[in-house]
Amino acid sequence: MTDNTEKKVIPAKDASIKLASINTLLKNKGLEAMAEALDQNRNSIQEANRKDLEAAEQLKDQGEISQALVDRLKVNDSKIDGMIAGIKDVMELEDPTGKTLSCLELDDGLELYQVSCPIGLIGVIFESRPDVVPQIMSLCLKSGNATIFKGGSEALNSNRTIFNILKNALEETGDIPATAFQLMETREEVMDILALDSYIDLLIPRGSNAFVKFIQDNTRIPVLGHADGICHVYVDNEADMEKAIDVCYDSKVQYPAVCNAMETLLVNSDITGKFLLGMIEKFVKAGVEIRLDEKAYTIAEDAGIKDVKKASDEDWSTEYNDLILSVKTVDSIGEAIDHINRYGSHHTDCIVTKNKDKRRTFADLVDSSSVMVNASTRFADGFRYGKGAEVGISTNKIHARGPVGMEGLLIYKYILLGNGDRVSDYAGDNAKQFTHRKLDKQISDII
Amino acid sequence: MTDNTEKKVIPAKDASIKLASINTLLKNKGLEAMAEALDQNRNSIQEANRKDLEAAEQLKDQGEISQALVDRLKVNDSKIDGMIAGIKDVMELEDPTGKTLSCLELDDGLELYQVSCPIGLIGVIFESRPDVVPQIMSLCLKSGNATIFKGGSEALNSNRTIFNILKNALEETGDIPATAFQLMETREEVMDILALDSYIDLLIPRGSNAFVKFIQDNTRIPVLGHADGICHVYVDNEADMEKAIDVCYDSKVQYPAVCNAMETLLVNSDITGKFLLGMIEKFVKAGVEIRLDEKAYTIAEDAGIKDVKKASDEDWSTEYNDLILSVKTVDSIGEAIDHINRYGSHHTDCIVTKNKDKRRTFADLVDSSSVMVNASTRFADGFRYGKGAEVGISTNKIHARGPVGMEGLLIYKYILLGNGDRVSDYAGDNAKQFTHRKLDKQISDII
Repeated sequence: MTDNTEKKVIPAKDASIKLASINTLLKNKGLEAMAEALDQNRNSIQEANRKDLEAAEQLKDQGEISQALVDRLKVNDSKIDGMIAGIKDVMELEDPTGKTLSCLELDDGLELYQVSCPIGLIGVIFESRPDVVPQIMSLCLKSGNATIFKGGSEALNSNRTIFNILKNALEETGDIPATAFQLMETREEVMDILALDSYIDLLIPRGSNAFVKFIQDNTRIPVLGHADGICHVYVDNEADMEKAIDVCYDSKVQYPAVCNAMETLLVNSDITGKFLLGMIEKFVKAGVEIRLDEKAYTIAEDAGIKDVKKASDEDWSTEYNDLILSVKTVDSIGEAIDHINRYGSHHTDCIVTKNKDKRRTFADLVDSSSVMVNASTRFADGFRYGKGAEVGISTNKIHARGPVGMEGLLIYKYILLGNGDRVSDYAGDNAKQFTHRKLDKQISDII
Repeated sequence: MTDNTEKKVIPAKDASIKLASINTLLKNKGLEAMAEALDQNRNSIQEANRKDLEAAEQLKDQGEISQALVDRLKVNDSKIDGMIAGIKDVMELEDPTGKTLSCLELDDGLELYQVSCPIGLIGVIFESRPDVVPQIMSLCLKSGNATIFKGGSEALNSNRTIFNILKNALEETGDIPATAFQLMETREEVMDILALDSYIDLLIPRGSNAFVKFIQDNTRIPVLGHADGICHVYVDNEADMEKAIDVCYDSKVQYPAVCNAMETLLVNSDITGKFLLGMIEKFVKAGVEIRLDEKAYTIAEDAGIKDVKKASDEDWSTEYNDLILSVKTVDSIGEAIDHINRYGSHHTDCIVTKNKDKRRTFADLVDSSSVMVNASTRFADGFRYGKGAEVGISTNKIHARGPVGMEGLLIYKYILLGNGDRVSDYAGDNAKQFTHRKLDKQISDII
């Protein structure tokens, strides 16, 4: 651990204990102070952001970064409005900590409470978007988690200014252990963070696939997120053709740059004539580059459709994040499911069918965090799933899966309330028996 | 991956998909077949076990393994009865998969179901106890998880025989994809398992602290379990003295070899006379070696108590798993909490007090999977917590914490049922609004 890391991580871990016990009123007071501070410091935020933008424009001119990245970096008044609105949304969310998840009587006067609590210390490593800082800081504060932030170097000035404004606002409330929130700025510190599995309980990476993959491959800290989003739509021979076209078009075209957009269309070979040819023409009109498997290519060729390419094996494992689509014909729902489980990224996959048995089979056997039945893959998102704010979309098989809101920042502890109880009374001859009776009691009514 | 691993892991992963969709009736039929097969093959199990026992006795004579390990290895008729009873207990447990955890209407006719499902492929690596095989296989079958087992070399013959009996029984039912269950036998295969993070979703190690630590340090697969169990009891100055003695004695003496036994007693310095001296005498009578901090040592010396030692700094981080206890005086509940969070293993810690504010403070600020209030640390256990069967005790901060039953083998997927729905209708001008209305519906009634 570098000196700098030690000066930030250990205080954050220590403060995480205190932060976990701050009540809702104080947390909301902190959130309000954060929102106000952003509003009152618009000028200094935009000034800092201008420095980052100037440097980014130079890098862009040298061809080192894209215009899209420069755009994401920009913080204008309306972006600050968005940050403030986001913090106020989190104020409105119910405090998720201290909830009694279950209560079990072990015996008369011996009661076991399972109570939700924060995870502890979260590490957030993100690329250039400065709006990650207020968003994650507000979610972590509301859920009682301490947080280490590390942003991209392109946004150094913006991140530092926003972070300091928010942290000072929390400090000034006097009630919140503001050392729970720390900002890292150097590359060495990232490698430090990844090695700190005895301090940091969960990592949330925000950035490109390669960036997330690098983090997953270089740490033993649990990582909440996903590297790839290779999403499929399977159009069954018993699909409603109009709905199939709507779902496929939306899944690909509505916003192709994101993880929940369709990358591969699987079509039952019975409906290549009825569905596929028309679908291809609609996609081509929308500027989508189409890459077809052998069978589909021959059919398209025979029908006189031009502007299509042949797919290679590599296409089945490629996330384009662009107006490109691979298309494969399959002979059965089983072949579609096998393809999805083999080549997909267990993110979001869809079936279009009217057949009830098939939708059940698909939902049972497709091993993905979201399974869509007659609905666009693009719905897989924290906001649309009603979570208020999204921590990320997880393809993990433990803890939290799919679009994750504040619930992904929580765990629980067991609290056993007794009266001098001994295990020895429940062992050996004449052992007392446990009652194991569910109770409808809340820990907040007791302690 | 070695050839051998490839022949086992890939088929298990493939079978995990099918296993996830087997219904409860078939799973229970499989469990019944497993129980019957154990009953009908008692002789061959005990014959195989005799080979392991003979080899173990030789190793013991050479001083390489302990009598305790030989005892744990032994499979007699009553142990087989226990295995059968365990399988039958799992038959009685409710099938935890396919449960609707939440249902949210996103809009009219667009419904989001969060449905429990198996995690996928679990790796179980254990030391010499052969009864782990039927216990974990039954829990994994009931929860729909495929499983790779790797047992200790001391139990090679017993594990292989029991595993084959159980797997054959499943195969003979004709309904269960028995390739979902695989046994590894060599050391090389363990290293293979640890590297297979793209196939194996969760590891459950069962064995010594060093064994669990080795696994945690050598894999990127999530590990469910705990290495250390350094548990504390803090006796407050406002404790009921009789209850304090009961709780402390039970926490240390009832079964000292296990992870939830007390290793360090923290005593408020106001009650060294009233409580500590008597407590020490009771422990010394029970054969407990007592290691006291400076202050307590002086007090004990002044009171003429002999047979006590001085604690060194190392004692605060030591799990004895034996009749040894370190004792520290503290001036306040705050000092006790700081000591526990610093030196403890976040497993199970206890306060004895009559003061309501203090029990709340302790429950809030002690960062442990189980917090006991006026009850022995020894209660922290799956059976006592009413879980029926215990997968392990976890000190993880994500997924599952504390004593973990079958719920630790589950995750969920989202299933969105639509009718040709497009995200484009919910974006831009005249965007439709989401209703985000909670529904009391079950996916099993729909598909």
